[in-house]
Amino acid sequence: MHEPTWLGSIHHDGSEKYVSSLYPRLGDTVRLGLRIAAKAPIKRVILRTFPDGEQALTAMHREADREPVQWWSCDLPIAEPITQYRFIIEAENGLWHYSAAGPSTWVPLDATDFRILADYNPPEWLGSSVFYQIFPDRFANGDKTNDPRPDDYEYRGQRPKTYPWGTPPEDDQFFPLVFYGGDLAGIEAHLDYLVDLGINALYLNPVFLAYSNHKYDVADYDRVDPHFGGNDALASLRRTLSARGMRYILDIVPNHCGYWHPWFQNALADPAAPETEFFTFRRHPDDYATWLGVWVLPKLNYLSLELRRRIYEGAESVFRRWLRPPYSADGWRVDVANMLGRQGQTQIGLEISRGIRRAVKETRPDAYLMGENFFDATGQLQGDQWDGVMNYGGFTHPLWYWLSGYTQGAHGFSEQLATGQWTTEAMTGTWLSRLAVVPWVIALQQYNILDSHDTPRIRTLVKGNDRLHRLAVAVLLTFPGIPGLYYGDEIGMVDVPDLHARGCMVWDEARQDRSLYEYHQTLIRLRRHSPALQRGSFQILLIEPDTVAFQRESLEDRILVIAHRGDEPRPAAPLPVINAGIPDGTRFIDLESGDELIVSHGALNLPQIDQGATLLRQVR
Amino acid sequence: MHEPTWLGSIHHDGSEKYVSSLYPRLGDTVRLGLRIAAKAPIKRVILRTFPDGEQALTAMHREADREPVQWWSCDLPIAEPITQYRFIIEAENGLWHYSAAGPSTWVPLDATDFRILADYNPPEWLGSSVFYQIFPDRFANGDKTNDPRPDDYEYRGQRPKTYPWGTPPEDDQFFPLVFYGGDLAGIEAHLDYLVDLGINALYLNPVFLAYSNHKYDVADYDRVDPHFGGNDALASLRRTLSARGMRYILDIVPNHCGYWHPWFQNALADPAAPETEFFTFRRHPDDYATWLGVWVLPKLNYLSLELRRRIYEGAESVFRRWLRPPYSADGWRVDVANMLGRQGQTQIGLEISRGIRRAVKETRPDAYLMGENFFDATGQLQGDQWDGVMNYGGFTHPLWYWLSGYTQGAHGFSEQLATGQWTTEAMTGTWLSRLAVVPWVIALQQYNILDSHDTPRIRTLVKGNDRLHRLAVAVLLTFPGIPGLYYGDEIGMVDVPDLHARGCMVWDEARQDRSLYEYHQTLIRLRRHSPALQRGSFQILLIEPDTVAFQRESLEDRILVIAHRGDEPRPAAPLPVINAGIPDGTRFIDLESGDELIVSHGALNLPQIDQGATLLRQVR
Repeated sequence: MHEPTWLGSIHHDGSEKYVSSLYPRLGDTVRLGLRIAAKAPIKRVILRTFPDGEQALTAMHREADREPVQWWSCDLPIAEPITQYRFIIEAENGLWHYSAAGPSTWVPLDATDFRILADYNPPEWLGSSVFYQIFPDRFANGDKTNDPRPDDYEYRGQRPKTYPWGTPPEDDQFFPLVFYGGDLAGIEAHLDYLVDLGINALYLNPVFLAYSNHKYDVADYDRVDPHFGGNDALASLRRTLSARGMRYILDIVPNHCGYWHPWFQNALADPAAPETEFFTFRRHPDDYATWLGVWVLPKLNYLSLELRRRIYEGAESVFRRWLRPPYSADGWRVDVANMLGRQGQTQIGLEISRGIRRAVKETRPDAYLMGENFFDATGQLQGDQWDGVMNYGGFTHPLWYWLSGYTQGAHGFSEQLATGQWTTEAMTGTWLSRLAVVPWVIALQQYNILDSHDTPRIRTLVKGNDRLHRLAVAVLLTFPGIPGLYYGDEIGMVDVPDLHARGCMVWDEARQDRSLYEYHQTLIRLRRHSPALQRGSFQILLIEPDTVAFQRESLEDRILVIAHRGDEPRPAAPLPVINAGIPDGTRFIDLESGDELIVSHGALNLPQIDQGATLLRQVR
Repeated sequence: MHEPTWLGSIHHDGSEKYVSSLYPRLGDTVRLGLRIAAKAPIKRVILRTFPDGEQALTAMHREADREPVQWWSCDLPIAEPITQYRFIIEAENGLWHYSAAGPSTWVPLDATDFRILADYNPPEWLGSSVFYQIFPDRFANGDKTNDPRPDDYEYRGQRPKTYPWGTPPEDDQFFPLVFYGGDLAGIEAHLDYLVDLGINALYLNPVFLAYSNHKYDVADYDRVDPHFGGNDALASLRRTLSARGMRYILDIVPNHCGYWHPWFQNALADPAAPETEFFTFRRHPDDYATWLGVWVLPKLNYLSLELRRRIYEGAESVFRRWLRPPYSADGWRVDVANMLGRQGQTQIGLEISRGIRRAVKETRPDAYLMGENFFDATGQLQGDQWDGVMNYGGFTHPLWYWLSGYTQGAHGFSEQLATGQWTTEAMTGTWLSRLAVVPWVIALQQYNILDSHDTPRIRTLVKGNDRLHRLAVAVLLTFPGIPGLYYGDEIGMVDVPDLHARGCMVWDEARQDRSLYEYHQTLIRLRRHSPALQRGSFQILLIEPDTVAFQRESLEDRILVIAHRGDEPRPAAPLPVINAGIPDGTRFIDLESGDELIVSHGALNLPQIDQGATLLRQVR
């Protein structure tokens, strides 16, 4: 069957334009809307729901057309914790099923049904947040008296050393013990910088006592590392953040701990110790389960109810205590959330992550609970586990691959797999496929990033190309979800030898890319004041070999993003917007040039577009 | 990117040709194989697994080519209850991800990964079974003394009446009380007929005490309806079936019971009765939850632990007792499996179906536990709930829609939605999308049907077209899963006025379509003696507007099925088989005409093909 051109005009998602309430209570009724181009020969639209597992059909009502769209609507009772639905569109030339996967002539799987969560309580502060990730040792040294010194401790037969800021480590220095003295006081001292940039929330890499510089080998979940300033420094940072209306989340490693954590030391010393059951000894004491074979990171075994108590269930558990005063973290980033509670025969990840969620939300209903997951996290994003994840799979990777090709490895696999740049379809297909299988309110909570402490910096990934870097920033700040910057990206930092993405923050303004900083400032300001970018619907409008365009639209705000990756400019050409429901005469302003564009004949006549991102905002 | 032609030659599924063991134990290692056309420019193939939630890559080994295919293989450790995997294929012109959804340039969702279940115990007798569904009142009257009579009982102010076999009911007869006197003795008396047809397993519609002719309004789960001959008749049928090596499964309604079931009557009479908690009274006694608003079918509430005990958990539970001697049912068909344990705020379906599975398999490890589900059942088909479902969504509906268009309704929706015939792509796309998200060993257990007591008869659906009817039968008997016939379809029965698909079995041979019967006989014999049809791999070979062709292949057997729906014959034309890994010189025999065909230049030169199915079996 030949696909009619109006098929691309069908749109619905979970946003406020299409669903009257994003956070209904059980027993509420919400109003659903579906938009189709006015010219489409539609006879009927039927809402297909699945109450208690049985198909139900409801005729939708066609409202008065609002040129250039026809608008169909109906009520949907919210009677279950998750209400799923899709649409059946009867046109003159056939029947189409429309789910979050798009229109299809055949019956889609339930997995791509639209989904509304009942009684879901989002962290309300999240929508207007722009995060900034800080790797504490490398951001700023606010207190030189607590810098790690060789005398402080021995770790794996080696001793720590603090290097002068920004200098390379010595060749023979044991890598995990290369320090630069960054600490919480340093963060506190630079909040002006972050506020000026527009940041209002921090994600701190681990701060709990540990011996390595990254501190994922935690030795005490109940104590902030003294080299970062100890518990008092965290309480102080909290106070200062609060005074500026800023939020912060901490990084926790519940999947494993460090070899020198007293729990593991007790277990090693005595098979009858209460902590022995926290681990999995295939043969005591020298053969035990670890994180990916790394012997210094013994895996925690959540079959132990006592471990659950200490980590999340108990009143004084790790997950709970740091959410309370005086530290009052606003949430958690959960390390290795993809592997938690998974150990061969024992697959209790779902139970553990639900338990963590329960404990966190009991303690702090507005906490943001975000997981690390490099892969397909959609199974963990149905409302009962994480509020969101570091959105590598659903945002970052497809954007990277579109911008710069694709190299893939894996732990324990010595080779690399490389391919060329992804097509635009591959990027948008990946984006949409992931958006299609999570509830809209969860998609809005995804932690979108361009990079992190675990990846190359975006500037390095685009090989220093400033235009592509800016393109990536623009997409980050306009994509559904919560944008998170990685420290130093905003001033053009690149990967450095030995330290990779974990170089020392550049504070010398002469060495900062101030123009790039200002670009970030501008887009962050836009994001923080745009309802469309924070919660508006998302629709792909254009796919060309080197160009993608999408719309974000809320009730009162509309932004179009056109991203062009080509080295050669995109020649002046129309951008059809009739499928986006935009009437002729609608005026847009180019946020960079200030030029005005007016829709006519269902299109915007775009001028030539250089490599980079063009943002158009509707003039109201 | 232009898709290379060899892309269609990539094949893997869970069958014995590609996986060395279908039923591995935890701790085993299986050998995986992947087939690609020899000419494809492949550089590397990598197995992508996800042990404990983390990506792992394993280089596959290219074995010596077996013209015309290249064969890649590697070992896969079975360390988790469910082991998921897919492939990454590096070709000279790009990188492809190959999952059960087929090849993709972008990273597929985990949902379509291939899946191997560890420690899974299938009902071993199932693979060679061909089922026959019987609606007992309408199959055969073996004992006229137990026919329902007006004096026997009153139901909703009406009285039952037994009509002469095959005569229409009177206009004023209350429909649920129209009887024809069919009973278990009647089934027992006609086993010769079924054995002659090739049947070796029965699915009986409900036989427990109830007032209506369909007996879904069960009044006693512990007693066979006396009008069907009571418990003794069932024990007798069991003995006679066993003597012929035949199996049978019973139909149970755990979602609701009949209004006159003593449990509900007790609950109505006394809010303090122990059975009151089995139901959901919004206001006692007159406002209670039902199946889809039907007041005579009160919904059972599985929040009640006592109900769970009586239905499945207890030693004398319904699910357990009928699996034991002297009745020794070989399994259950579970009515309304899609709605079980689902009631608005309370969504405990997963817990209940898992509990039922545990009880059934404890009692009878080789029992077949099969659910009714008209919709997307794939969420219930991951190995922990049903062995299979009545495969409307994954088999029947797409075949119907391809043969005869598509009309859709729903309970409580007065209108009908109709569209034209589905395209061949819509049918194969639906088939493959459902196969892609369930483990292979579960796909082999799906209960495939052309119709049932709840649908039009297939003969009626194809408007009496004998060729299309035979086509449907051929696809049923060659598709992955367990074929189930509906009584009388094999002799050409059609829907009849008032009784619809539940007409009286035609025993007068002069009124039976004996040619159609023999066609069934032939194909059933083929199915029961073909390893390829019982467990072989499944690959679509050809999609044309009116024609589909697929291959079933086991280690020692290969069958090609070409189904042509067109009123006009398909002109003589080649069927390319190089993508199916079939070498030149391979000989096939047309199972109907006896003609031999030989592969040359990568294709079979098919003669003109009439409407219907052509089956080719490789000559060994």
